[in-house]
Parts: sequence; structure tokens; C-alpha cells
Amino acid sequence: MAGLGTVGASVVRLLARHGEALARKCGRGLEVRAVCARDPSRDRGIDLSGTTWYADPAEMARASDIDVVVELIGGDSGPAEACVRVALSSGKHVVTANKALLARHGVELAALAEKNGVCLNYEAAVAGGIPIVKTLREAMAGNAVSRVYGILNGTCNYILTRMEKDDLSFAECLADAQRLGYAEADPTFDIEGNDTAHKLAILTSLAFGCKISAEDVYLEGITSITTADIEAADELGYRIKLLGVAQKTDSGIEQRVHPTMVPKSSAIARIDGVLNAVAVDGDFVGEVVLVGPGAGGNATASSVVSDLADIARGDVAPVLGTPATDLVDYARAGMRLHEGGYYIRLSVYDRPGAFATIARCMADADISLESIVQRRRAARGDAPGASTPADPQPVILITYETTEAAVKQALEAVVSKGVVADAPQMIRIEKLA
Amino acid sequence: MAGLGTVGASVVRLLARHGEALARKCGRGLEVRAVCARDPSRDRGIDLSGTTWYADPAEMARASDIDVVVELIGGDSGPAEACVRVALSSGKHVVTANKALLARHGVELAALAEKNGVCLNYEAAVAGGIPIVKTLREAMAGNAVSRVYGILNGTCNYILTRMEKDDLSFAECLADAQRLGYAEADPTFDIEGNDTAHKLAILTSLAFGCKISAEDVYLEGITSITTADIEAADELGYRIKLLGVAQKTDSGIEQRVHPTMVPKSSAIARIDGVLNAVAVDGDFVGEVVLVGPGAGGNATASSVVSDLADIARGDVAPVLGTPATDLVDYARAGMRLHEGGYYIRLSVYDRPGAFATIARCMADADISLESIVQRRRAARGDAPGASTPADPQPVILITYETTEAAVKQALEAVVSKGVVADAPQMIRIEKLA
Repeated sequence: MAGLGTVGASVVRLLARHGEALARKCGRGLEVRAVCARDPSRDRGIDLSGTTWYADPAEMARASDIDVVVELIGGDSGPAEACVRVALSSGKHVVTANKALLARHGVELAALAEKNGVCLNYEAAVAGGIPIVKTLREAMAGNAVSRVYGILNGTCNYILTRMEKDDLSFAECLADAQRLGYAEADPTFDIEGNDTAHKLAILTSLAFGCKISAEDVYLEGITSITTADIEAADELGYRIKLLGVAQKTDSGIEQRVHPTMVPKSSAIARIDGVLNAVAVDGDFVGEVVLVGPGAGGNATASSVVSDLADIARGDVAPVLGTPATDLVDYARAGMRLHEGGYYIRLSVYDRPGAFATIARCMADADISLESIVQRRRAARGDAPGASTPADPQPVILITYETTEAAVKQALEAVVSKGVVADAPQMIRIEKLA
Repeated sequence: MAGLGTVGASVVRLLARHGEALARKCGRGLEVRAVCARDPSRDRGIDLSGTTWYADPAEMARASDIDVVVELIGGDSGPAEACVRVALSSGKHVVTANKALLARHGVELAALAEKNGVCLNYEAAVAGGIPIVKTLREAMAGNAVSRVYGILNGTCNYILTRMEKDDLSFAECLADAQRLGYAEADPTFDIEGNDTAHKLAILTSLAFGCKISAEDVYLEGITSITTADIEAADELGYRIKLLGVAQKTDSGIEQRVHPTMVPKSSAIARIDGVLNAVAVDGDFVGEVVLVGPGAGGNATASSVVSDLADIARGDVAPVLGTPATDLVDYARAGMRLHEGGYYIRLSVYDRPGAFATIARCMADADISLESIVQRRRAARGDAPGASTPADPQPVILITYETTEAAVKQALEAVVSKGVVADAPQMIRIEKLA
């Protein structure tokens, strides 16, 4: 075991508590033979007597008395990468929770594992305790997948849920998430969507049999979402979620991470707080949705041990479902070709003709509007009528299905006409069953 | 392939469409070598050229040129059983969708498979396209499960959903379900809960490492549910679902199938129509919920092929998660010890003292009431006040957590006092996160 943080300690505890049952299920026991962590003297509340301590994870990965290396160090390079490479090269199975490493080097590491006839298992890397890797790789092996999408980051979902339920600002909810340990001191990686993008890139490869291409994920975080958007979504029958979506289109595969309007009636709209959910559309099975804890030491340990059990049982599957040498190149569908409905919030100067100008910009871009909501704004706490006619007023537009290019064109035109006070807000609407 | 009905034909179509991708994923091709069905001349819209036709499935299972038998005949004995026994005995892997067969002979067949070193896979037998068998057996292998529950019968869920959404009677919805092909001409097996019980018994074994014991499932169907119950549930913040629940308690394992009040806010409450959903509570992972199509040729075929892919890949796991020889006896927790909240609907004669009598019966059984709803009934379509004080009036009671024995005792007392016009209705409330 390389890395003995929260997840590592949970894995050790799990093996201690359920080791006997696991041995029956797998036909052989699982034993922690060696560990590698920064501070051997720290009390982690786990019994590590009889294990060999290593300072260097790569050195541990070379040891002749171990069969499997569990990499829980993290990071897309450095000691984690070295440890995994050494392990696979020396014919040892690897279990990892490291999405960053896989998003960057996954295909190459998969090839290395397959060349050496060993497993590289990573159920814990995507959606924590939810068995989405196993589901895509094995349970849905007989399906052509058309779309996989989900809520893959508990931090963002916690913030969006709190904003909605408690009418708080993004900043207030982020501070709460940090206080509760749901967000890092530097939350950038979560709230800007990078974490979701890494997970999505892995799911894309599993779903479509293509190479992992994390740098091709279209990325928008949740920092621009305001309570005004949340309220408007609510009124219009939507909730706002940070989704990762990978979808087959005529022009290739879209990979996108962005705040998304989802109908309140959809399963995904009801996933609250730090929960994760992943939905897969298969041509034979239809839609399957998995919901569960996306993070936390124990839930993640459950997935790590599931991977270990598969190895102990002798199940060697292609790392990414399809053998690495058969993975096709990722064919990126340009975001400008993305088709869907759009939510647009404008802050419009209340002047004669302003609305006609906006309507003209939409029509020029061939965009039809499903609904238009204009309401005189009353600032929070103010008495009605506190705003004056000269103040810019929010206007919400919901478009029928159109293209990203058309929306961009229309919004650029709106801005250039000088009728809006701020940059337009635009949130994509996901079509869900 | 033994049996070429809807599911069998879908399996053949799936293999034809995705055979190449599957071969890459599994490292070997899947080929339909022999089929066995009643009418070889019927046009099933599938290409079966090059396959050998057998009249007797057991004879086919003996053939030397096949590795795997897919049993889609159905039934807990007869040709299906013979075919599976012959296949396993002659060292052939078996994939089956036959819950009735497994519920009755599962442990014995598992032992036979394991003795012969072959697989007996049955993902399609429980919840159709949802990979709950794989999830329990493999993904959650590192967890002690405390409860598994779900909506396992699409017919019942369709009927209950229609009753609620369209304010129709049970009989009307059943007729609709039959017209739409969601219910059999003889719907008994579905609506009385037997089908759910079979599936639950299999899940119980997988979740708790015990022998299958379908005859120990406590069983109540949905035929007694009225629109009055559905309406009362709605008002009280619940929905009524036919759940199968297997739960560890101090006195053993409860297996029960009955109409259940679930909080509207729960994930399971929102599963509509013919969808299925299964939730598992594990000590490490927490709660994982899987939602998807519980029936249908294509969704079921997806699970059958997933089982085939596992076999092709060489993954041999214990049939019931734990090897058959290590399965412990099923320790039945008596229903009288069941603890939970209860919904009680009484038809009370509107006489002085009637309500005091009921309250006394509840108190005598140590039952505390969380809410009491009494409302003068206005028959559907009648003007308010159309009922007279002498008519029996509905009274709804919601109890705090109590025992089944206490509720039975209280209701017997209520009936014996002659204050109610009809047999009391009682629906259990499931505590859900």
C-alpha cells in the first residue's frame, strides 16, 4: 500500500474487519505486506504490525514478496506515477484511486498492464463508492453507449445544493464546504471542473472504446452561478447541476463539463449534497443510473477492495474495457456544433427598444425562444418598487434546441448593441428522459 | 441457447450487432452454435443459419461442441431445470434469467457449478438490465450488508404509479397493464408478490452469504391497495411501492415483500412506471442505489450478454458470492418482531366513543401515534356533505416505531370492539435516508 491517508487507513480497517469473508469470496486471503507513507510514527488507528515499511513507493513496488500494489498517493506524475510504472513493469497488479494519473497516462499504463498480463484497476478513481467502472466495463459490455453523464464531484454538488436550499451565495456555500471538509483549502480543482473532467475522460474511454483525452474536455466551472440563476431555474422547472457529459454525435464525441439545467423531474436533478450519480444510455439496456457516495475514506475503500477482490479471484479484463491497442483515437466533436436548449440571463438596460434589439439578435441567429421571463427586480430585503426604471433588469430567455455557435453569435451581437449592463450568463439545458 | 422468446431473440440480435466489439473486450468471440425452441419454422427476425436445432434442451446441453448454455426457458423445474443440471454436470457454463429456478434450486445448482469449476451466471434473473448481481457479488464484496431493498417488479410499480398519477382503481390499472403487455393474462404471480419474492430471495443470499430461502419470504401483494390509501399516503408525505426488503436484525434476517410507505423525498419513491430500483446499505460504502429497466427483451439480453462476456473473459466467481459450501443457513427473523412505523386506515362507525375505543386499543398495545387524520368522507363526484353522520368514516393513523406484534394485537382489539365497518388496512412504513 503506497499512501496511508484517509482512504489507505480505511482499506486497512476494511481488510481487518472483513478479511475472512473476503478470503471465502475470493478463494484466497488478502494480506497487507508492505506500506509506504510519509510518517511511520503517526497514529492512524490501524494495526500495521508485521508489515514492512518503505520510504520509496517505487522501491516497494519492486519487492518480490508482494503481488499487488495499491497506489493511494495521488498526483499525475512523481512518486505515484513511478510506483505504478514500476509495479506494472515488474508484473504486479495495481489498484489505484488516482484519476489524475489515469486521465493523463491511462492508455499508456493500460498498455503496459496488458503487455505484462496484470490488472490495473481503478474503480475508486471515478465516483468513489459507485461501481461505474465495473458497470461500464463489464455489465454494459454488450451495449453501444450513446451517452454517459453524471454528477461526479461532491464538492460542487454540495455547493449548488446549499445555494438552492438555503438561498446562499456561491462564496458562502464554498466557505461552508471548506469548514465541513468537503472542499480543499484551494478549491480550484473542484469548482473549476477539472476533477470532473478527469473522471469524465476515463468514463468516455470506457463507454466509447476510445483513447483517454482529458485535454479535450470542454470545461466550465460553477463559480459564475448566482442565486439569480438558481431561482430562475427553479421557476422554470429546472435545477442546476455541474454535469460531466460524454455523448456521441454526428461529428464525433462531445466531452463537456459545465453547469447544466436539468429538469426537476429527472433522476439526476434529485441528487443532493455530496452524493454522486452516473447515468449511462446503452442501445440494448436503455438508461441505467447509479447513485452513491462519491468520496469519503470508507466508500472509496470499498471500491479499492472490490478491485483487490477481482484480482484475487483472477479476473483479468482489459483495463479500459477494450484492449489498449484496440482503442480508437478520440474524435472530438467541436463545442460550437453542440445542440441543445439554452438558458440565457441578461441584465438589460430598461430603455425603449432594448428588448426588440435582443429579440432581433436571437432571430438573426435563427434561435427560437421557448420562454421569456422579465420581471422588475426587487433587491433582496428591499421593498417592492425600490428599483428605478433606469436600473438594468434581468431578462431570462429559454431557447428551443439550437447550436452553441448560434448562441455565441447572438450573445456577441447583444453585447455589441450596448443593451446589456453585464456579460450575459448562459447555461446549457440537458435533454433527459 | 435454450428458449428463443423475446429475450432469446434479443440476445441473438445483440451478438450479431456487437459481436466484434465483444470479441475485442473478451479476447474471444461468442458464437451461437445451437438453439432449442418449440417452433423452428417461426420467423423471429433473426439469422440462425449455421446453428444446430435441438428439440430437447437437455440433449443440447450435452453436445460436445458448446461451452456455454443460455437457459431462457423459464420455470422452476421441467426442461429448464433438466437443461441446467445437464449443462453444469457436463462441465458447461450456464447463463440463465430464471429466477424461479434459482429461488428454488439455487444453492444446489451453485454447488454443482462450483464442483465442476464452471459459472452459473444470472444477472438477468434479478431486476432485468440492472447489474445488481454483479454489484452485490463483486463491487460490494468488501462490505457487510445491513439491508438490500428495491422495486423488483415492473408490473406492480406500473399499476401503483398509474393509480397515483391518474386516480384510477387497482382493477382499472391492472387492465391497462395487461393491454400494454406489462402484465400477464394471469397476473397473480406479479401482483401477489411472488415474482418479487423470488428475486429478493436471491439478493438475500448474495447480500448476507446465506442459503436461498424463498419460502421464508413474508409475502403481501398489492391487490388490497385502494385509491384511498394512495391519497392518504400523498397527503402524509409518502408514496406506496411494492418493496422487497431483506434486512439484518437482532433476531435474524427479515425477508419481506409488501406494499410499503416510502417518504416522497427518498430515491426509491421517485421510481415510476415499469422501472426497477435496488438499494444496498453496506457498512463501508454506505447506500448505493441502482435504477434501470427491470424487464424487456433488450434490457434483459444486455444482462445475459454481460454474463456471457464474464465467462468468455474467464472470470469464475462463486455463484452466490460466497462458495455454496460456505453459505450459512438462513436465520429467519419472525415478522412479529419486525420494527417500524405503520400506516393504519380504519373505517370507523361515527358513534360517540368510537375514537376513544380505538385510542385505548393502541395505548394498550403500547403504540404511540405520530399522526391521526380524520376527515368526513365525500364520495367521489358527490357534493360535500353528501355523507351522513351515520356512515363509517375513514380514520388514518400513523404510528411511531413499534412492532408488528403490537400492531396486530391493537387491530384485533379494534375489530373485536365492533367500532370499524371493514377489515383494517395496514401498510408498513420503511425508514429510508
